[in-house]
Amino acid sequence: MPSEFEIIDSYFAPTAKQAQGVVLGVGDDCALVEPPVGQHLAISIDTLVEGVHFLPDIDAEDLAWRLLGSSVSDLAAMGAQPLWLTLAITLPEADERWLSRFTSGLDAALEAYKISLVGGDTTSGQLRVLSAQVQGSVPVGEALRRDGAQVGDLIYVSGTLGDSRAGLELLQNPQSHAQQADYLLQRFLRPSPRIDLGIALRGIATAAIDISDGLLADLGHLLRRSGVAGQIELESLPRSTALHSFCDAAQAMRWAATGGEDFELCFTCPESRKSDIEAISAQLGLRLSAIGRVSVGSELEVKSQGQSWLNPHSAGFEHFGAQQ
Amino acid sequence: MPSEFEIIDSYFAPTAKQAQGVVLGVGDDCALVEPPVGQHLAISIDTLVEGVHFLPDIDAEDLAWRLLGSSVSDLAAMGAQPLWLTLAITLPEADERWLSRFTSGLDAALEAYKISLVGGDTTSGQLRVLSAQVQGSVPVGEALRRDGAQVGDLIYVSGTLGDSRAGLELLQNPQSHAQQADYLLQRFLRPSPRIDLGIALRGIATAAIDISDGLLADLGHLLRRSGVAGQIELESLPRSTALHSFCDAAQAMRWAATGGEDFELCFTCPESRKSDIEAISAQLGLRLSAIGRVSVGSELEVKSQGQSWLNPHSAGFEHFGAQQ
Repeated sequence: MPSEFEIIDSYFAPTAKQAQGVVLGVGDDCALVEPPVGQHLAISIDTLVEGVHFLPDIDAEDLAWRLLGSSVSDLAAMGAQPLWLTLAITLPEADERWLSRFTSGLDAALEAYKISLVGGDTTSGQLRVLSAQVQGSVPVGEALRRDGAQVGDLIYVSGTLGDSRAGLELLQNPQSHAQQADYLLQRFLRPSPRIDLGIALRGIATAAIDISDGLLADLGHLLRRSGVAGQIELESLPRSTALHSFCDAAQAMRWAATGGEDFELCFTCPESRKSDIEAISAQLGLRLSAIGRVSVGSELEVKSQGQSWLNPHSAGFEHFGAQQ
Repeated sequence: MPSEFEIIDSYFAPTAKQAQGVVLGVGDDCALVEPPVGQHLAISIDTLVEGVHFLPDIDAEDLAWRLLGSSVSDLAAMGAQPLWLTLAITLPEADERWLSRFTSGLDAALEAYKISLVGGDTTSGQLRVLSAQVQGSVPVGEALRRDGAQVGDLIYVSGTLGDSRAGLELLQNPQSHAQQADYLLQRFLRPSPRIDLGIALRGIATAAIDISDGLLADLGHLLRRSGVAGQIELESLPRSTALHSFCDAAQAMRWAATGGEDFELCFTCPESRKSDIEAISAQLGLRLSAIGRVSVGSELEVKSQGQSWLNPHSAGFEHFGAQQ
């Protein structure tokens, strides 16, 4: 079985490309990087745990995509340009085939998101645990924070919601079938962090968050941090035809509202910037849907056909058994 | 049981102090930091796994010290000033007493090492796994790398070696007794990263590494990266009186050479800088011992009383069962 140093040398060192201000990559006590001038750095760390965030039999290539996609999504939500990644990987054994699949996915995802692997730690343990720490740059004063939503702002979401939840259902119940099963599976396994959208929204959005726990939970965080309330219309949540071909309308609506892990962006902006949003949508070829409005108060009100909507299921995924 | 958000709010948010260029701390999609001008950033990530790097019954306060000490040691080895920490913690359950002990140790260690917690991720999993990603700053061109050792340089180590290995022995065999058991235990549980030494060695040391795998293994890495050979004299390895009161001379020598996790610095510098090293030693009140010399070739030669020394035991700790 290869040793820790051989794993780093043979799998991760070739992936750790010298790029984007990387002065010294994998192989010393630390990596050395040169931060861009006039920019703040955005930093986030995310962990995926076997049996909690992914099934034990997940393909290692998909796992690498999912780990990077979900991490880079936090940079997108800040309007940051991805720069550097460090990776901590705990594995029960040094399975060369698994590592080879994992690094193949990692390499492709690094390329896709234009982020450089600069360091890592490989350890043994009876459970697969992967932590990705990502950093990106954003011009001073232009970061998209959660706390800037203003009363009267429109609330937007990108793409379509609930697809990832349907993809998880397909994974857990292989007997399920859907006309566009592949699309839904990919939405779960290989999320698309909205990097370009985040960057385009600098100076336009007043607040932003990525949808990891579910729209209602995440929009709730944003409103709470901004000290405001919000109303959204359930029927206005963007849903894909793939989702509707997979389940009934009520289920599709629930998953769009609470499903989680879509890694779309939810953001607010003044109504006066509506035409800017339309231009960004056209430029990126990405659906951007107004789903509600920010108001005075502290509650998130969800309406369906003019009535208050009570969600019969979870309001978002939480660890340590705190699901509601 | 508290939810993930409550854990972050009640335990980590108060610890995440606004300091050292921290524009936005815990609570958004990312932290935002302002990197110091004219400096490179040194980045490192380290993972501790229950049952591999620490015993299940370790005191949570000690664990926090050990996690931070071993991580910050990588910054020290680069000559970097600690700045920011992100933490990924996987726990089987949200044990409030454990978390309270852990954050108490974390808080004290953050204060001691002058590093700010800027972000984290708390997840559930059947095994305790902790990853710490640390960043520090070092003036452009002054980082202590592993690859700069020159033929003729003296080889130095700081402090004393083997104490941490003896401390581990004391933990694993509580029936063991030593006159200075507390000192040896603390050397294992709460290592002292040599931050001030690393900074003082900027512009003086030609190469440096911290001793985590054991002197022979780590000095071997340094020499290999520098493309040179080295000779050291076993008798010149600095050993504490506590270590000698705990075991016989041969054992003390073996642990000093191969024990690991002392988190002292091993570095090289031209003989002409000998007086600078003595001045730094006096200024920091820290023993700095010349233990050998860099030469032409590619091997690390260890001599004892003029003879080649063959180590009958491991040359350093490695994961995945690759111990020799």
